[in-house]
Amino acid sequence: MKLKQVYPNIKFIDGGVCAAKGFRASGIYCGIKKPSIDNQDPNRPHKNDICLVVSDVIANTAAVYTQNKVKGAPILVTRENLSKTSGKARAVIANSKNANTCNADGEEKAREMCRLAASGLGILPEEVVVASTGVIGQILPIEPIAAAIEPLCASLSYTGNEAAATAIMTTDTVKKEVAVEFEIGGKTCRIGGMAKGSGMIHPNMATTLNFITTDAAISTELLAKALGYAVKFTYNCLSVDGDTSTNDMVSVMANGIAENTEITKADSDEYRLFENALYTVMMNLTRMLAKDGEGATKLLECTVSGAKDTDTAITVAKSIIRSPLLKCAMFGADANWGRILCAIGYADADFEINCVNVSLASEAGSVRVCENGSGCAFSEEEAKKILLKDEISILVSIGSGIGEATAWGCDLTYDYVKINGDYRS
Amino acid sequence: MKLKQVYPNIKFIDGGVCAAKGFRASGIYCGIKKPSIDNQDPNRPHKNDICLVVSDVIANTAAVYTQNKVKGAPILVTRENLSKTSGKARAVIANSKNANTCNADGEEKAREMCRLAASGLGILPEEVVVASTGVIGQILPIEPIAAAIEPLCASLSYTGNEAAATAIMTTDTVKKEVAVEFEIGGKTCRIGGMAKGSGMIHPNMATTLNFITTDAAISTELLAKALGYAVKFTYNCLSVDGDTSTNDMVSVMANGIAENTEITKADSDEYRLFENALYTVMMNLTRMLAKDGEGATKLLECTVSGAKDTDTAITVAKSIIRSPLLKCAMFGADANWGRILCAIGYADADFEINCVNVSLASEAGSVRVCENGSGCAFSEEEAKKILLKDEISILVSIGSGIGEATAWGCDLTYDYVKINGDYRS
Repeated sequence: MKLKQVYPNIKFIDGGVCAAKGFRASGIYCGIKKPSIDNQDPNRPHKNDICLVVSDVIANTAAVYTQNKVKGAPILVTRENLSKTSGKARAVIANSKNANTCNADGEEKAREMCRLAASGLGILPEEVVVASTGVIGQILPIEPIAAAIEPLCASLSYTGNEAAATAIMTTDTVKKEVAVEFEIGGKTCRIGGMAKGSGMIHPNMATTLNFITTDAAISTELLAKALGYAVKFTYNCLSVDGDTSTNDMVSVMANGIAENTEITKADSDEYRLFENALYTVMMNLTRMLAKDGEGATKLLECTVSGAKDTDTAITVAKSIIRSPLLKCAMFGADANWGRILCAIGYADADFEINCVNVSLASEAGSVRVCENGSGCAFSEEEAKKILLKDEISILVSIGSGIGEATAWGCDLTYDYVKINGDYRS
Repeated sequence: MKLKQVYPNIKFIDGGVCAAKGFRASGIYCGIKKPSIDNQDPNRPHKNDICLVVSDVIANTAAVYTQNKVKGAPILVTRENLSKTSGKARAVIANSKNANTCNADGEEKAREMCRLAASGLGILPEEVVVASTGVIGQILPIEPIAAAIEPLCASLSYTGNEAAATAIMTTDTVKKEVAVEFEIGGKTCRIGGMAKGSGMIHPNMATTLNFITTDAAISTELLAKALGYAVKFTYNCLSVDGDTSTNDMVSVMANGIAENTEITKADSDEYRLFENALYTVMMNLTRMLAKDGEGATKLLECTVSGAKDTDTAITVAKSIIRSPLLKCAMFGADANWGRILCAIGYADADFEINCVNVSLASEAGSVRVCENGSGCAFSEEEAKKILLKDEISILVSIGSGIGEATAWGCDLTYDYVKINGDYRS
């Protein structure tokens, strides 16, 4: 899909998690996913099920975790590791198909994954970020992971980003990678990332797994601050189905190899530029996640403006994006705007319903469907044409404030039901 | 479906809104729904689109309305009427297929419906409860309603409950009526009700339209108290799709014709009996609403026990019932209990996840799938057998408190998507 540029001085480049200097990656099939015909096909590498991302030098590292009370064992172990190292890491190890969650031996297995990776890489176990995604409540087999460490380390390369990005896919139909470059004090810096996620996606955190790397030099404190900002306006504004996963995590590693003067002041142009670049990467990964939502045929992008503050705009935009009835109507290209009003109405936010205007837009045009809380005349034919496109904008103004926010989601289709009716097999 | 008896001294009877003495009802087709072949078929009377329920004498009346900020015009007018009469009413008029919501002339039309009904019945317009359900944002045609008043009044009868119950159906596939009788001080009292609702159902209020009648004598104040209690544990514990409708309303009219001594004390056996009877009616209507959820093939009933208090139990039970992923798994008869744990985990409630036990049950048996927050061994074959039934119980204990509550919902199916992909046509 087409990437969305927000800042002219932040440019898209290739390379995913390997775009930033000093990061190698690898991904292979170790046997957690079932072997299948697909897996024999060199053109369909998405059966990879384990990956490594490694920085050449120790990197300042920040992470944000799911707010679900049920936290996958890898989440607990990663949090423990980053606390031990005061926010430093060298590597990420992640597997798909098994979430290692709700298992009595979960933490033990997650720690064993760190030990295995550390021993293969010659680093400390607590310098490893560990993540798992997949079915909840099935014992994670450690043997295939132990056997995978040698080939994983052997195949690490500065162009291994795609192998890694495919290894974290579950029901995803496409890999998700974004990278940008920008200049700080004459030095070129890069931020790149990969994400997986298709179902069980809802704020907060809506991310499933996201790994970001950068060669910019920035303090751990400001790295965490920038990550918090970007999460609020990207992954936390994403809903595929309203289910907040147990294993969501986003981590960002900054290894400083770009040799810019380390960013240590929040009130600086350098910090703001870094924040904008991180937002650009994560916002585009968010759009990819929404568009590849389980069974989705359409990306829905809802922008709410005129709110009394940003948080109000976020609340209303999320409420709209989450509505199953609206999602079905969008699948059917039916301009049933009453469902948008309904979802606005049950949002837990403060505004005047009589000031609400709603328009629907896509590359085929734009149509106003509701003015001052009541319906207005519009051409159903024109609306249909707009809604038949695969990227739909829902534009809502709810008053005269300056709060504005965007939330992302997708339509609800037969395939969502099909995929989730029998996910475990 | 089989009704669920809770109290041995409260017995089910026939008659719906006409079970209580002194209530007549009627329902006809007036032309708001599209004429169709179905409508010519005397065996499929569900194309009725307007109804009346009338008490022979003035009745103490209480109502609870949707908490959506967008409120249908009929909601506003009913609230105004009951406020003018201090909680007295004689009649209900309700139409389906058009919600009369988000229309500039909505309140005017709703008031006109009250005037028309009042003039046909020889009562005051403010003694009328008015309700509409259907598509949001389409102008309500008043002419067919005006023309319907005479035949509606002419066909009022003490056995007209079924004609009325079918007239409020939209995507409902079955009419929903429940009635009970019980004795207060040697006098037989009755409570009966009808409900409609299939989609756009979620707490709070999850009811779409519900009309209850009783011949018991009870003060308006205690009637409202009993209604509030029953709503909390029935309609507000129901979720079909997470969309809280704009037009939800439940009203209860008590005309006193049973001649029991009027119930005026909350701390009395008579009041408790009335509350239990009202709960029995509304709980069974709730189960019918859940089972007939749009596209549903299964009723899901989730009981959470061991919570520190009732509200915690309600929050957790609702969170489980709402999960789209769990709903899909139930459709597929897949014992994917990790999704139950996931939904428990993101419930906004206070409990220890390590104390959670989960069982799945139906008339085919019962199987424990999770103990102390981790999976336990169970027979997939046995679980499949249990989940292939059309009424599934999800039994969750979350600790050692005494809080317990049940929430109701249904599975998520292809037909939900189909029905809602193009609802307006």
